[in-house]
Amino acid sequence: MKDCYNSVMLRFLPPASPEPAPFETVAGRDDAGVLVVCDHASAAIPARYGDLGLPAEALASHIAWDIGAAGVARLLAARLGCPAVLAGISRLVIDCNRMPGDPGSIPALTCGVAVPGNAAVTDAEADARAQAWFQPYHDAITTALAHLRRHGPVPAMVSVHSFTPCLGTAPRPWHVGVLSNRDRRMAEPVLAALAARPGLVVGDNQPYSGREINYTLDTHAGAAGLPHVSFEIRQDLVADPAGWGDWAALLADVLAPVLAESALHRIAIA
Amino acid sequence: MKDCYNSVMLRFLPPASPEPAPFETVAGRDDAGVLVVCDHASAAIPARYGDLGLPAEALASHIAWDIGAAGVARLLAARLGCPAVLAGISRLVIDCNRMPGDPGSIPALTCGVAVPGNAAVTDAEADARAQAWFQPYHDAITTALAHLRRHGPVPAMVSVHSFTPCLGTAPRPWHVGVLSNRDRRMAEPVLAALAARPGLVVGDNQPYSGREINYTLDTHAGAAGLPHVSFEIRQDLVADPAGWGDWAALLADVLAPVLAESALHRIAIA
Repeated sequence: MKDCYNSVMLRFLPPASPEPAPFETVAGRDDAGVLVVCDHASAAIPARYGDLGLPAEALASHIAWDIGAAGVARLLAARLGCPAVLAGISRLVIDCNRMPGDPGSIPALTCGVAVPGNAAVTDAEADARAQAWFQPYHDAITTALAHLRRHGPVPAMVSVHSFTPCLGTAPRPWHVGVLSNRDRRMAEPVLAALAARPGLVVGDNQPYSGREINYTLDTHAGAAGLPHVSFEIRQDLVADPAGWGDWAALLADVLAPVLAESALHRIAIA
Repeated sequence: MKDCYNSVMLRFLPPASPEPAPFETVAGRDDAGVLVVCDHASAAIPARYGDLGLPAEALASHIAWDIGAAGVARLLAARLGCPAVLAGISRLVIDCNRMPGDPGSIPALTCGVAVPGNAAVTDAEADARAQAWFQPYHDAITTALAHLRRHGPVPAMVSVHSFTPCLGTAPRPWHVGVLSNRDRRMAEPVLAALAARPGLVVGDNQPYSGREINYTLDTHAGAAGLPHVSFEIRQDLVADPAGWGDWAALLADVLAPVLAESALHRIAIA
């Protein structure tokens, strides 16, 4: 399934690092009332794992990270004046948006591509990956939310992902998908605002559904009753810094009035 | 509100420790298909916090821990042959069943009792408490669930709490409460089995409702689609080892047939 790679951004692949930092934070106002997160921000693979048995094309593709998502997340946080937490490790090493122990957490097969380096992962190795990258990323989100909660209104969470233009050979028409689960407090007004933009094809729980497992948002926001929404941007639209800037501006425009409503900033268990 | 203390178990109060361990684990079968957790297992307060400005009676009471819950949790895990994770710190230092940053996380006021040592906690101090005790406890739960998930069926989660016989001056009639949120896969058959026991007064989402925030179960189980249930046992019934044994036996009897159903062990987002 070579089509699955869609490796539009090989030039942005980071150099191999002996031990990638588990997360990156963007500073923001403690009373901003919103946190931006990016689970698949990085394609970094620790040097000791080599290439996990994959060709360079795969290591630069969507199976390794969400192309363009980090660029959008950083600029979106800057526009909103809020903090952001971005994961520092490739989803091929450990997927920060999956429960550890889930078959998708350390994928032996992803998007039809076998990952030889993940074919025989021991408990000790799986625990080590979780402790080195997964846990610190999620702990950083917990800490960031705690600061926002202590210094401002009940915080919202915004997650930034990207998706491939094709699934197999089927083109995906959406420019952006708005994902939500039970709590639609943010998704509804965001969808309405995006619908008013001419020429934009917007998916409501497409190309993925937020009603299925969406680990990071469900655990940090859904379970705690925080308002939240996830964006999936088609990766060819955010393949370069100009695209990052355009989409950060669009999402900030759409989110700002939603976040400005004080009624949004309440704990509500949907 | 001295009545709130209900300090029936002063003799079990642990000695002050310079640095209490953040959690205790009970070993169990990796394919047991269930994890027992106990958020308020310990009344331990690090020596550097002194008595947090509270009298000894308060430090031995329900505001510090769930009296008897740890004893039941350990014996229940032993009967089920499953692992357990018990928090190691008093809820007065940091409540492992609250989102960090929540006013109840490091309570300045709890059950009508002011906690002088928590009156002016800085961000740095709050972060330090979360990192020392809250995070390691929750990371241990994540790790235990990952092991169960890799080696056996989709794991269930069972949480053990206890409650005071009176709230203020109002007696609470229930012997045990079965708490649940949207996912009632375990609560329904457990309630049916308990209803068949003569003389037992059972609360369905009483004396607390699992539909409100129930941090540990909601984040680890609810968000991930794992079946789960929480027990609240009236603390006077589990005030000594005989009570722990009786209640561990009862809960194990009730849970065993529910856990034996292979259909239970599926991921289901309620």
